[in-house]
Order: sequence, then C-alpha cells, then structure tokens
Amino acid sequence: MSTASSFVRNGKKIVAIGRNYMEHVKELNNTAPKEPFFFLKPTSSYVPSGSPVEIPRGVLAHHEVELGVVIGKNGRDILQADAEQYIAGYALAVDMTARNVQDAVKKKGLPWTAAKGFDTFTPIGQFKPKTLIKDPHDLRLSLKINGAFKQNGTTADMIFRIPRLIEHVSSIMALEEGDLLLTGTPSGVGPVAPGDSVECVLTTPEGEVIDELKFDA
Amino acid sequence: MSTASSFVRNGKKIVAIGRNYMEHVKELNNTAPKEPFFFLKPTSSYVPSGSPVEIPRGVLAHHEVELGVVIGKNGRDILQADAEQYIAGYALAVDMTARNVQDAVKKKGLPWTAAKGFDTFTPIGQFKPKTLIKDPHDLRLSLKINGAFKQNGTTADMIFRIPRLIEHVSSIMALEEGDLLLTGTPSGVGPVAPGDSVECVLTTPEGEVIDELKFDA
Ligand SMILES: [Mg+2]
Ligand SMILES: [Mg+2]
Ligand SMILES: [Mg+2]
Repeated sequence: MSTASSFVRNGKKIVAIGRNYMEHVKELNNTAPKEPFFFLKPTSSYVPSGSPVEIPRGVLAHHEVELGVVIGKNGRDILQADAEQYIAGYALAVDMTARNVQDAVKKKGLPWTAAKGFDTFTPIGQFKPKTLIKDPHDLRLSLKINGAFKQNGTTADMIFRIPRLIEHVSSIMALEEGDLLLTGTPSGVGPVAPGDSVECVLTTPEGEVIDELKFDA
Repeated sequence: MSTASSFVRNGKKIVAIGRNYMEHVKELNNTAPKEPFFFLKPTSSYVPSGSPVEIPRGVLAHHEVELGVVIGKNGRDILQADAEQYIAGYALAVDMTARNVQDAVKKKGLPWTAAKGFDTFTPIGQFKPKTLIKDPHDLRLSLKINGAFKQNGTTADMIFRIPRLIEHVSSIMALEEGDLLLTGTPSGVGPVAPGDSVECVLTTPEGEVIDELKFDA
C-alpha cells in the first residue's frame, strides 16, 4: 500500500486552510484573506469513520466539513500549473475546532494549535484515488447532525482553488507523500455536543456518493 | 534503528513550547504564561547540522536555541510522574522563527504556522540517548554567530520543566515515538542574516560537550 493510500497511518502532516469559503468567512465575522493562510493539525488527531470523537470538558467543539487533498509525491515551490501531478487522491474530513479555545487564543495572538489539535479532532473518510473524481471543484460537501442538515456547500465556492493552495503552502513548506491538505469549510459551522450523531457525505453534483464519514460524539 | 533514534527521518511531529524562560519572555515584551502553550513545526523543516538554513526573501529570521526531547513511546494523558518513561533521548535544536511574520500574525490573531514552519527552519543535532545525560534540567545551551556569543543559558531556568511539558501536551494530543518536543529558548534571540555562520553547543555544567550543531545562512 502506498504512503498516499495509507496516509492516515503513514502521513506526516495535515495542512489546513482557513477562511476559504466567503459565506463561512462572514458567519464568523472574519475578513476575507488576500492570500491563503494555513495551520497544522497533528496526524495524532485522525479518527476513522465510525469511531467516536471525544470532546474534552470545557471545550465548545465545532464541526467544519472539508474536502481533503492527499499528496502523492514530495515537492517544494510547486507551480499551480504542476500542482495536479502532486495529488494522489481525496478524502472527506472534518476539521473539528475548539471554538472557545480558538476565540481566546486569537485575542491573545497565541497559536491555534491546541484549539485544532485535540485527539480525535480530525475525523477522516476513505482514500479516493483522483481517477474517481472528474472535477474536485464541483463536489457537494454536506454534514448532518442527528439527521438535520447543518452544512451543505459546493467546492465550486472555494476562494482559492486547490492548485493555488498547493503553490502557496509549498512555497513555505515542502509537501510530502501522505500529507493531507484540508481546503476549508463552507458555511454552517456550529457545535457538536456529546451524544450527537454526525454524518457527512461527499457527492458529485448528480448525487453520486464519493466518500462518507460518520461519528458519534 | 528505532523510530526515536531516527526521529529526523521518521518522526511525525515537532511540538514547540513558547515562552519557557523568563528572561526570554521579557526580551520580547511578552507576559509569562500561567500554563505551558505550544505550536507545531512540520518535520519538513528539519535540516541536519552542517547543511544551510535558507532565509526567504523578506523574512527577518531569528535564532532560538533549544533543548529537544525525543519521545520514545506513544502516550496520552501522561502524568508528570510517568513522563521519564516516554523520553528516549535528547537533541540540540534551533527553532528558527520569521519574527516579522510572527509579529504580523500575532496582531491579527492568525496561526503561527508559516512563521515557524519554513523549510530548513529547524536545524537539528544528533540523537543522544537519555543514558548519556544525568540531568536534563542542568545543561548549558549556547549559540554563537560568527564566533560571538548570542545565547548562553541553562535549562535550569525553564519555567515549566520537562515532565510538566509532557503532561500538558499529552493531555491535548497524543505523543508518539519519534516526536520532538522543543522546550523553549533562553534569552538572547536575534537575527540570523544571509552569510552568517552559526554554532550551537549543549554541554554539562562542567563543560562536557553533549551535542553540537552548526549551520550557515
Ligand atoms: Mg521556499
Ligand atoms: Mg477548517
Ligand atoms: Mg522557540
């Protein structure tokens, strides 16, 4: 099994883009970025579909459903025009966020790391080779809690598209086979409480299911 | 070779503690933390002793010499009393920091990731098994630029000691074999300019050299 297809076990980093969908930028009263920005989540935060997400005491946990891009080979200073060659596939993911912790550290100018990095804070679907996906910028991303839609967006609404994200990140830090790039979340983020049942689906515009992801909190 | 002794190649994360020496807290006009805080550096930022550090255009790069703790086995919610069992060894490291980028993101409440994560921004020494080190809280850490001392401190001055750091980090995210914990920098941080030659040494109080690290910028 390649490092890319076994990225959950063998990958080294998760690079997560912030504020990449305008409606989500607005719902958190943020301003739209002029260039992409990102943070790291530890791979120790991965949890496979079906396993529980643990919400630590005192944490207000928010869901952010996102398209994950699995890197297929090592590269630095990758040009947008070449970015496609560095993609092995995709996976559905949730960037769980301790929103109260994040709000506090943002005010103090401190790192986002703890707010984003708790164990089980990156529920992850299955590796889907890129050959299965015609257009990664034309996919529906949805998330339901206890059967009710909370997020239902399209990757067509990304502010910065995947090749631009790969170019930007790799101009700062090398991307390596098995790294996961989280591409930002559409609007509708909100709390996941202990006892909630969460279901996410990634589909084509025609409704064909590409990846699914479920967890209980 | 174990994952711990080959941590530069095989480790998954670098967890770096901020503001863990009072004189350094003061020199950057920060306030002392009530509990440890930390950020992640990507392992793609490692560069072995002797290889050059690349300073990107527009970046004011600062040196922060630090004692690195190499984790020897996986653990979550590790108690201070048990922390020693999770340590495989130590290594001298420099937490290179794009200070102008960090100052800008701190003001905006944005992640520190890019400021800390550029390729070659974690010069790293050799793995030293813990059996070689009598007391990790009684070591001298020094850094010279072009032969002149810039940092010269002792790990005795850490605000939070290593067992407390391991307890704190592992209460949030699992530590894994091969992870590196950077324990903060003593005072004296400052710029490294292109053309500078940097030498760092880790010694016992008696002056016995434990690890060395050199790079040109
Ligand atoms: Mg570069
Ligand atoms: Mg997100
Ligand atoms: Mg540091």
